[in-house]
Amino acid sequence: MIQHTIVKPWSGRFTEVTNANVETFSASVAWDKRLYRHDIQGSITHANMLAQQNILTIDERNAIVRGLENILLHIEQGKFTWSEALEDVHMNIEAALVQDIGDVGKKLHTGRSRNDQVATDIRLYLREEIYNLRSLLLNLRTTLLNLAENEADTIMPGFTHLQIAQPITFGYHLLAWQEMLERDNSRLKDCATRMNISPLGSAALAGTSYPLDRTCTAQELGFTQPSENGLDSVSDRDFAIEFTSAASICMMHLSRFSEELVLWTSAQFKFVELADGFCTGSSIMPQKKNPDVPELIRGKSGRVFGHLIALLTLMKGQPLAYNRDNQEDKEPLFDTIDTLKACLNVFTALMTALRPNRDIMRAAAKLGYSTATDLADYLVRKGVPFRSAHEIVGKIVAHALKHNAELIHLDLETLRNFSPLIESDVFAVLTVEGSVAARNHYGGTAPQQVKLAVVRAKERLNLNF
Amino acid sequence: MIQHTIVKPWSGRFTEVTNANVETFSASVAWDKRLYRHDIQGSITHANMLAQQNILTIDERNAIVRGLENILLHIEQGKFTWSEALEDVHMNIEAALVQDIGDVGKKLHTGRSRNDQVATDIRLYLREEIYNLRSLLLNLRTTLLNLAENEADTIMPGFTHLQIAQPITFGYHLLAWQEMLERDNSRLKDCATRMNISPLGSAALAGTSYPLDRTCTAQELGFTQPSENGLDSVSDRDFAIEFTSAASICMMHLSRFSEELVLWTSAQFKFVELADGFCTGSSIMPQKKNPDVPELIRGKSGRVFGHLIALLTLMKGQPLAYNRDNQEDKEPLFDTIDTLKACLNVFTALMTALRPNRDIMRAAAKLGYSTATDLADYLVRKGVPFRSAHEIVGKIVAHALKHNAELIHLDLETLRNFSPLIESDVFAVLTVEGSVAARNHYGGTAPQQVKLAVVRAKERLNLNF
Amino acid sequence: MIQHTIVKPWSGRFTEVTNANVETFSASVAWDKRLYRHDIQGSITHANMLAQQNILTIDERNAIVRGLENILLHIEQGKFTWSEALEDVHMNIEAALVQDIGDVGKKLHTGRSRNDQVATDIRLYLREEIYNLRSLLLNLRTTLLNLAENEADTIMPGFTHLQIAQPITFGYHLLAWQEMLERDNSRLKDCATRMNISPLGSAALAGTSYPLDRTCTAQELGFTQPSENGLDSVSDRDFAIEFTSAASICMMHLSRFSEELVLWTSAQFKFVELADGFCTGSSIMPQKKNPDVPELIRGKSGRVFGHLIALLTLMKGQPLAYNRDNQEDKEPLFDTIDTLKACLNVFTALMTALRPNRDIMRAAAKLGYSTATDLADYLVRKGVPFRSAHEIVGKIVAHALKHNAELIHLDLETLRNFSPLIESDVFAVLTVEGSVAARNHYGGTAPQQVKLAVVRAKERLNLNF
Amino acid sequence: MIQHTIVKPWSGRFTEVTNANVETFSASVAWDKRLYRHDIQGSITHANMLAQQNILTIDERNAIVRGLENILLHIEQGKFTWSEALEDVHMNIEAALVQDIGDVGKKLHTGRSRNDQVATDIRLYLREEIYNLRSLLLNLRTTLLNLAENEADTIMPGFTHLQIAQPITFGYHLLAWQEMLERDNSRLKDCATRMNISPLGSAALAGTSYPLDRTCTAQELGFTQPSENGLDSVSDRDFAIEFTSAASICMMHLSRFSEELVLWTSAQFKFVELADGFCTGSSIMPQKKNPDVPELIRGKSGRVFGHLIALLTLMKGQPLAYNRDNQEDKEPLFDTIDTLKACLNVFTALMTALRPNRDIMRAAAKLGYSTATDLADYLVRKGVPFRSAHEIVGKIVAHALKHNAELIHLDLETLRNFSPLIESDVFAVLTVEGSVAARNHYGGTAPQQVKLAVVRAKERLNLNF
Repeated sequence: MIQHTIVKPWSGRFTEVTNANVETFSASVAWDKRLYRHDIQGSITHANMLAQQNILTIDERNAIVRGLENILLHIEQGKFTWSEALEDVHMNIEAALVQDIGDVGKKLHTGRSRNDQVATDIRLYLREEIYNLRSLLLNLRTTLLNLAENEADTIMPGFTHLQIAQPITFGYHLLAWQEMLERDNSRLKDCATRMNISPLGSAALAGTSYPLDRTCTAQELGFTQPSENGLDSVSDRDFAIEFTSAASICMMHLSRFSEELVLWTSAQFKFVELADGFCTGSSIMPQKKNPDVPELIRGKSGRVFGHLIALLTLMKGQPLAYNRDNQEDKEPLFDTIDTLKACLNVFTALMTALRPNRDIMRAAAKLGYSTATDLADYLVRKGVPFRSAHEIVGKIVAHALKHNAELIHLDLETLRNFSPLIESDVFAVLTVEGSVAARNHYGGTAPQQVKLAVVRAKERLNLNF
Repeated sequence: MIQHTIVKPWSGRFTEVTNANVETFSASVAWDKRLYRHDIQGSITHANMLAQQNILTIDERNAIVRGLENILLHIEQGKFTWSEALEDVHMNIEAALVQDIGDVGKKLHTGRSRNDQVATDIRLYLREEIYNLRSLLLNLRTTLLNLAENEADTIMPGFTHLQIAQPITFGYHLLAWQEMLERDNSRLKDCATRMNISPLGSAALAGTSYPLDRTCTAQELGFTQPSENGLDSVSDRDFAIEFTSAASICMMHLSRFSEELVLWTSAQFKFVELADGFCTGSSIMPQKKNPDVPELIRGKSGRVFGHLIALLTLMKGQPLAYNRDNQEDKEPLFDTIDTLKACLNVFTALMTALRPNRDIMRAAAKLGYSTATDLADYLVRKGVPFRSAHEIVGKIVAHALKHNAELIHLDLETLRNFSPLIESDVFAVLTVEGSVAARNHYGGTAPQQVKLAVVRAKERLNLNF
Repeated sequence: MIQHTIVKPWSGRFTEVTNANVETFSASVAWDKRLYRHDIQGSITHANMLAQQNILTIDERNAIVRGLENILLHIEQGKFTWSEALEDVHMNIEAALVQDIGDVGKKLHTGRSRNDQVATDIRLYLREEIYNLRSLLLNLRTTLLNLAENEADTIMPGFTHLQIAQPITFGYHLLAWQEMLERDNSRLKDCATRMNISPLGSAALAGTSYPLDRTCTAQELGFTQPSENGLDSVSDRDFAIEFTSAASICMMHLSRFSEELVLWTSAQFKFVELADGFCTGSSIMPQKKNPDVPELIRGKSGRVFGHLIALLTLMKGQPLAYNRDNQEDKEPLFDTIDTLKACLNVFTALMTALRPNRDIMRAAAKLGYSTATDLADYLVRKGVPFRSAHEIVGKIVAHALKHNAELIHLDLETLRNFSPLIESDVFAVLTVEGSVAARNHYGGTAPQQVKLAVVRAKERLNLNF
Repeated sequence: MIQHTIVKPWSGRFTEVTNANVETFSASVAWDKRLYRHDIQGSITHANMLAQQNILTIDERNAIVRGLENILLHIEQGKFTWSEALEDVHMNIEAALVQDIGDVGKKLHTGRSRNDQVATDIRLYLREEIYNLRSLLLNLRTTLLNLAENEADTIMPGFTHLQIAQPITFGYHLLAWQEMLERDNSRLKDCATRMNISPLGSAALAGTSYPLDRTCTAQELGFTQPSENGLDSVSDRDFAIEFTSAASICMMHLSRFSEELVLWTSAQFKFVELADGFCTGSSIMPQKKNPDVPELIRGKSGRVFGHLIALLTLMKGQPLAYNRDNQEDKEPLFDTIDTLKACLNVFTALMTALRPNRDIMRAAAKLGYSTATDLADYLVRKGVPFRSAHEIVGKIVAHALKHNAELIHLDLETLRNFSPLIESDVFAVLTVEGSVAARNHYGGTAPQQVKLAVVRAKERLNLNF
């Protein structure tokens, strides 16, 4: 068990000890300890560079690196005691190092400040988590594409304003979801690229008086280059906001999918069925099978939007450079990551187990005069200007509504009362199959187009990852 | 150690077990277990009423009440095992009850649903926490009033636009803070009053087929009356939003106080000094003593604003009645309470240990032509319309600026070049003491008024609590 | 046509004129001119008090008051030219006054600053608008109560998780809406009461050197008392945040009603029909009749939540007292008022013209095993513990699902296979009428209770306005 | 003057006219008319493609294009009457077209819906405005780089926690601002690239039954390709959220610069002076010169954060595809663009006219033991481990504080009491010039590094635009 003496490493100029409530109030170790692996990785890289630049001897470097690796092992084995009095992950690890290897451990912090240290840690950590999130997105997108391929011919009603608009296919609908997630992946990737700059060597805010090789540490840590300005590097939290914004948009997408699943599993729609394992019952109503998972995901969008506002508020009006306010960046960021990971995971499993009720969907697609646009287009092909065709069909619909009939049930004579251009070939146009098949261009809902779109999207899956 | 069998109490109609990831994803017991005391209080009240209405026998009631009290004891002694598979605090306690007292425990949930149960628990809990928060506000307000009384004569510059405006007293400034907190108290009190309605008996959404006496349970739990409508009662989370909004305003106030303390402790202002115990140092800069506490409080305002948005987003567009989204109400609410309590506590301690630098404040009050308004008022008393007096003094200031002098250093002749109405009695008007003393009406900064305002505010402390 | 010379009233100490872009950037008159009536009311009150305190002569007072009344007339007749160069409503009116009545007009601003002036104006304005909003809420609540009375017996399905839960009545559902709006009224009223304090006489931040009678102006303007502290009075915008928060909750309620209307008008639900006059069609699909009004209201909730965040962000971290940032308080506040008024108005009209499809609602209430809870309660009355009864009924539902039958269609023998306690009297319990009628306690859905609740709510309408 | 008949183009199936209040409530033309140019551009492209595909004749195409160009001319000359009854910019222009060129105008809407039309318009519009914003960013960045070059040697204190940390140069500080704005540019560019996809041809949601050539219209409008899925295209507002998020981060940056300017212009700092033309005075205090412009910019950050929340709330939980809620996307988007443009413009002008007080900055850099880190580094170079050196210097600072002296004023003997390793060469290390010059690595504050950084940044200005 690694222990450590609890002397604040900055206490030289102080005459009073920290108020105990303040210690608890200001400590961040309870949550920032999740950065331990990246903190140690950053410290080892820093020590290597200090040795290369002859600021440490090889022996000192070796002792420090071995010590840090030992601490890493202890942490991963659950044998490390975290101390609130040592404030944060950085001080905890450094104190343990000095405890373990003695005074040489006090040399590690040469040419470094907690300000650039934490900025480095959090970029390493977030970079990794963005990669993980993009992998989860890939899983979900693959699931949706496979389902879309299967359901390319499954007819369902397309809605606007939650009113039946035109027949579409279920595969087409699922492809819309895929498109949203593809943009999410792209946003996350841009965010990871933009943030991949090394703050290490910025020290407190101005750089240091040691001959650091910042390009070397940047490379060793997989950053594209050292940051241009120390003042900016230690106070910049743009990446956290940009990430949380991208996560908010992704959660918003998931909330839309969830809303649709909640609708589709209602007694009124019954378009799909969720597996029992994704639902729960009621403590009072024995018949209930509730779509808890989509409801929770929909609800969790608020949480992530809230974190975005928390981070923007945090940074608003802060003078440069680092202020302690910034410690508040971590909890919203961490919870955003955890929430998005959990939602993507469970949503992928949910979709894998989804059972579409194809007959019910198809029947619903026939309601609501869903092929009225096709009838207008039919008239346009007979020479009527679109706007006039629209008006004629509007009147036919009004007539059908009054007689409580669907379009397909009106006889030819009735239809011809509204336009003599209508002939018996109109009935092929009024079927949901005919309607769907007719939308046969790039991006249209025709089954053939859906299949082509799946092929293209699957190519992009790997190409643009 | 109380254990329990893990059978979902709603599993009758299900053919598959809950997916393990879903169990983790949807369980809330990790955080809603903090409601255990209020949950048991509600259950005991419910059981008492069921017995009174002859729905339970006295023996059944006694067994249930004893069982619940036993569980309460176990929980408070840390001897209760919470199970994620049992989802939430309610199911955990009910399962333990049945485990403990047998089948009679299965009768507790008669005429009740988790929907009205959780709505009751959370109102009881929040009502108590609002009381606690108002007590903390009382402490801070008392601290500020005592300090204001002490500093009623301490002259400092008053700022608008962070430019020196007019001399005020430090006591006057502290009274402004007190006013804000007094409104916070008033808002919290209104919120507690408005939410103090009993949802118990609303059951799932429609009431129950048992002859419940809802007025009786409402009274026993200290509510003013039973709620009017079940559908509303189980889906209403207004109180959480209203509370979080009141907490956001309070955090905004604390962020303003904190901003001022950060300014006032800078090398440029030096108006006050914080005790060492409320500050920390730097890992790299040995001279630093940082105002961490006010910075953290200022930063934490973002967190609470974020929770407010989380809750509003959560409820937006939800159809009635209860949806599982609502489970997401608790974490933002709980964290808001915890954050506000911690901030009020530590801020009160911080202010108690504050050391004002009275000489520095007074010297600063003399800068920036702070008595220019007094000079204009002087001219008005000599018959110049205010707007013209303002213009004359503007020109005097421009002249003084050009010669890098303060007003008090200009000689009479110079002043008379701008207005012959100025006489030697002007110099009394230009002192900061004269300026402050002149603002001697209700709500003005004159030391006498500050002392009267402290007396009035202290009276209200108790009167309106 | 009233014109005015454009000389900045504060330009004495300046050597350069305002940059033209800055003039546009910082002018607020385009929107704060809506405060003209309250600005003039405040100025007249101030002038009256100055005269009473012998700071103005009666003649001066009379000239000023006549001048202001003349300006009011010109503005209301659309004959007043607003100048951006004069920044805001206050400077525009004062400049016009001086233009009109000469130098005596320059005396109006004695003992006053724009800081307390605008704080007074906006409180007068918002107090009035809150009254207007509460009147609109009263109209909507009355409409809902009348509708609820009419529909007290109309059976519809009650939902939780958008799954059919238990039968309720449409009247009961409408009463849930009324409850939400009643809380909105109560919050707005509290807000108006809390803000009804007079800042007039706070001047720039510290009070003035004139013997003002602040109690007198407070009374004349209908405030309960003068504010306690000038620094607080000129920098306080709590009321705007509290109001916008109350408005956000109200918009959230309207968004929930709207979500339900959008669902209910879909082809899948068809519970209600909106009048044509509240819907629009599609540019391409001739059959569409879209529920635009509820959709827009639902969408507008975001706008008001956004304003709330704008105001909280605005105030976060501002040092005392007034900073120019605060000018940004008006647009969010004004748009919140306008949006809420428009939504309440149009929603009331929409509900007045609503046509419920009672047969469809009733038929839907029979679906989804909506009386399963009643069956469990039946078993409880036969002596089965509730939790066991719940499990038995869960199994009956699973059986029914497998055979695609509703509960009422199962024969007695089948039911008795699950519990021999079930007898032929069970079928009365399984009807939706029986279910609804059974929930016959305070706050329950039984038609009798709905009618009593309407009576109570109507009494409160007037009592608590 | 172009007029138009006011018949709703979708009124065929309706039996009642639109309620007048609803017309006002739901009309968007008051603000979406700013899309007129892009709407006409999209329509002309659509007409060209229809002709190419033989859906229109060449004559019909010519008539339509001439008609649209004529309308464009009228609008730009202010001779077009916008009608609220015609709802939006699209219907207004189409109605005018039909009015002008007759029935052939009714053919324009063939194979198109308002859904894909508005999605196209807004992408064209936003793409252009992002370009404009990036140009304004370029101006500001150039201004800052020129200023940074000039001030590369100007020493000022660097702050952390608003406490003096280490000496830096003013040029270095300005470069930090440039870095933030460079990221803003990069984010806006990514956003413009991601959104540059053509929705045209998606029609209502599913594509059309006409043989559209979507690739052709995409190319003509400068999009990289047609969108993949119609359902997604008409309901996607990601770009608006992503843009508003990027704008929020940029406003957050401007709020930080503004906070610093407000601090720096205070009587306590006096680091810089703003030109009179960017300040205003007070209505009551004749001496005031207030930094209104930075205050307003700081305040306006809230407005843009609010718009971000408005848009996220708007989209949360919306089922596919288009819902009328989406109309609410425009006002937040437009106001975000207007606000950011105005702020960037005025801030650039403000910085161009900024006057740094170099002597005051330099004097301030000497306060607060700003070179204490250099003393610790000096000891490290003499062989003391950093953490021990930090502690020794901490004690020296405590000693100096007690004697109210700066480090440079302590004599050698005193210093040697704390460490015998200190020799007379220490005093060079304690000067602010020495401190700054020592931070001479990539990204450090040494004047030489600042100049190199300016060169690199200027190269990137053009390279990455």
